[in-house]
Amino acid sequence: MAGFAAGRDTWGMRTLIRFSLTASAALAIWIALPHGSTHAAASGPSYTNDGEMRRPENYREWVYLTTGFDMSYVPNAQADHHMFDNVFVNPEAWRAFHKTGTWPDKTILVLEVRGAEGKGSINQNGNFQASSVMGLEVHVKDQSRFQGNWAFFGFREGKATAKMIAQTEDCYSCHADHGAVDTTFVQFYPTLMSLAKEKGTLAPSYVKDSVH
Amino acid sequence: MAGFAAGRDTWGMRTLIRFSLTASAALAIWIALPHGSTHAAASGPSYTNDGEMRRPENYREWVYLTTGFDMSYVPNAQADHHMFDNVFVNPEAWRAFHKTGTWPDKTILVLEVRGAEGKGSINQNGNFQASSVMGLEVHVKDQSRFQGNWAFFGFREGKATAKMIAQTEDCYSCHADHGAVDTTFVQFYPTLMSLAKEKGTLAPSYVKDSVH
Repeated sequence: MAGFAAGRDTWGMRTLIRFSLTASAALAIWIALPHGSTHAAASGPSYTNDGEMRRPENYREWVYLTTGFDMSYVPNAQADHHMFDNVFVNPEAWRAFHKTGTWPDKTILVLEVRGAEGKGSINQNGNFQASSVMGLEVHVKDQSRFQGNWAFFGFREGKATAKMIAQTEDCYSCHADHGAVDTTFVQFYPTLMSLAKEKGTLAPSYVKDSVH
Repeated sequence: MAGFAAGRDTWGMRTLIRFSLTASAALAIWIALPHGSTHAAASGPSYTNDGEMRRPENYREWVYLTTGFDMSYVPNAQADHHMFDNVFVNPEAWRAFHKTGTWPDKTILVLEVRGAEGKGSINQNGNFQASSVMGLEVHVKDQSRFQGNWAFFGFREGKATAKMIAQTEDCYSCHADHGAVDTTFVQFYPTLMSLAKEKGTLAPSYVKDSVH
């Protein structure tokens, strides 16, 4: 999924995904939601024998962090449609963050990119979330497995597993350079940012960025 | 909180809140988030002796349903700022909905109205969620307690309890007339709508609306 490298936006991938979807439906990725599941599975990462990551099945039962609307890190990026992105984290990692202000090993952050609808039912203005999931991206911390501790995975439509995105891609350097805490964009997670400040876990690069 | 009656928008209250905030900071309601809590409390409703509802402390650990952006049920409503609203439900109710396609007794839906920021950190377009919570509203099902089974409560800044919103207010009739399932706006909760269709629990009034 080399294209992920081109977009310097949320997760280093967002704008490119939006543009790809616009340019060609064939590039669209769509992941079915785990409707009907009523029990949270163990929330640590799981991999196949050949090193692909298994899609987290129950992330909609995890802890919600935030939602962005049409976010992009590229100036003047314009898409012909609106999109939401919802971020979830596994509960164990969320609890650890509250104690330490940073992420423990086996943290899994899931970014769900979801379509937006405007007028519909009795809604007249603004946007609500559509049933279509346009993409599912994972940022996972697994210290014994990944150089730099973290890796990205992008799950395509209908796929239960995903190859790791190469560490040469821009998403890694962008997160390292601009993430508020441990290469993650905690600056966009409103309930966690105050904890990071309180615990003194903001990355020096982020603090330096913020001064300018 | 009689003003809630005027806005025929999400939860029957949203536009009015947005306009009130714009018109007068004194009307703003702001609820501190339960940072630092690491254990989910029992998630059923709780009331004081004089009938006020206690604010759900751990709703950010509940199950996330959806986020709207600048939604309003009033045509051509314009606000001078953007807002997100995040909806959460207690886990027991969410699990029951997956089995039955409707809400059990003691369901609590929490609407968190949150400010939106635009450019900030490395974000160049669109909006991300601000640390400021502009309002917290609850829709609770308690069959032995409320006529019509459900009631609304709006929590003001810094208040741990709230009076019930009178059943003569518009939010009740709007939800009864337009809610897809059991007076709730499941049509805006993308992971639940398909379940309601599958289980045949859509309200006749909603189905009739949808035909037109």
